[in-house]
Amino acid sequence: MTGAPFNYEDFAVGQRFASPSGRMDAAAIKEFAAEFDPQPQHTNEPAAAAGRFGGLIASGWHTAAVTMRLLMTGGLPPVAGGTVGAGVESLNWPRPVRPGDVLSVKTEILETRPSRSRPAYGLVRFRAETRNERGETVQEMTSTLIVPRRAAG
Amino acid sequence: MTGAPFNYEDFAVGQRFASPSGRMDAAAIKEFAAEFDPQPQHTNEPAAAAGRFGGLIASGWHTAAVTMRLLMTGGLPPVAGGTVGAGVESLNWPRPVRPGDVLSVKTEILETRPSRSRPAYGLVRFRAETRNERGETVQEMTSTLIVPRRAAG
Repeated sequence: MTGAPFNYEDFAVGQRFASPSGRMDAAAIKEFAAEFDPQPQHTNEPAAAAGRFGGLIASGWHTAAVTMRLLMTGGLPPVAGGTVGAGVESLNWPRPVRPGDVLSVKTEILETRPSRSRPAYGLVRFRAETRNERGETVQEMTSTLIVPRRAAG
Repeated sequence: MTGAPFNYEDFAVGQRFASPSGRMDAAAIKEFAAEFDPQPQHTNEPAAAAGRFGGLIASGWHTAAVTMRLLMTGGLPPVAGGTVGAGVESLNWPRPVRPGDVLSVKTEILETRPSRSRPAYGLVRFRAETRNERGETVQEMTSTLIVPRRAAG
C-alpha cells in the first residue's frame, strides 16, 4: 500500500489501478484446495491430468483470494478505515489458473455514489480483471466498496 | 460426500441440501487474512476492537472459501467429474463472521437448463445461504454449476 488512504471523495469514475504480480505454484494450489475445495482437479496431479481440465488447476476461490491480496497491494488504493466490500455483483473464472501462472489485477472505478442508508459513507463500484502472464483473463469481478466520506471540516 | 455423484439430470428445481457446520476460530481468521486479506480488522485484535466492527472479523473471502468447503461436504451433492462453477452472479456478506461463529450452508436449486454451447453439459443455478449458529445470514450467494449430462445409453 502506498500513498494516503482514500476517502470516498478521492475516488472518481474512470480511475485505473494495477497490482504487482504474484505466482501461483502447485504447492499453494494444493494447500488451499486441501482446506477449502478438496477436489481431485485441485489436489491430485495424476487425477487432474486425466480429468476435464487436463491438469492441475486452482480453485476459483483461491484465485479470488489471491485477487484480494493483489487488490490490497496496489490493485486498489488503500481505503480509510479498511477496504470493506458491500457486495459482489458478478464473479467469473473464464479460464483456469494452472501451476506457474503469474497473476496480476487491473481495476477501473465504474461508479461512485453516496450511501442512502449511511450518510457517513459512499459506495464505490469497480471492475477487477485478473490476468495471467500471457494477458489471458482468469477472473472477472464487479464489486462495490463502502468507503468513509471525508469528515466535514 | 455421500451418495452417487449427480449428473445434470439428477438436479431439479426446488431441491434443498444442507451442510454440516464448521467453527471459525480467531487463529484461522488471522491466518487466512495474513495471506490473502492483510487488514487490521482481520489480523489484529486490538486494532479490530477500535475499528468499525468493534472486534476481529473474518475476511469475506475466508467466509466464501469456508462456504465452498461446506458445499463440498453436504451443502451440495457430489457432482460427476467435479463441482465446477460457471460463475457467481451475486455474493454478499450481510453480517460479519466473528471468532467462535459456527457456520453452516443451506442451498436450493433455482434453475436447470441445458448448455447451448456445450451439449454434453447442463447448467444448474443455485442459491447458497451461509448462517451462523444464531441463524443469522453471514453470506448469500447465487451461482451456477456446469454439470455433465448423463451419457445417452
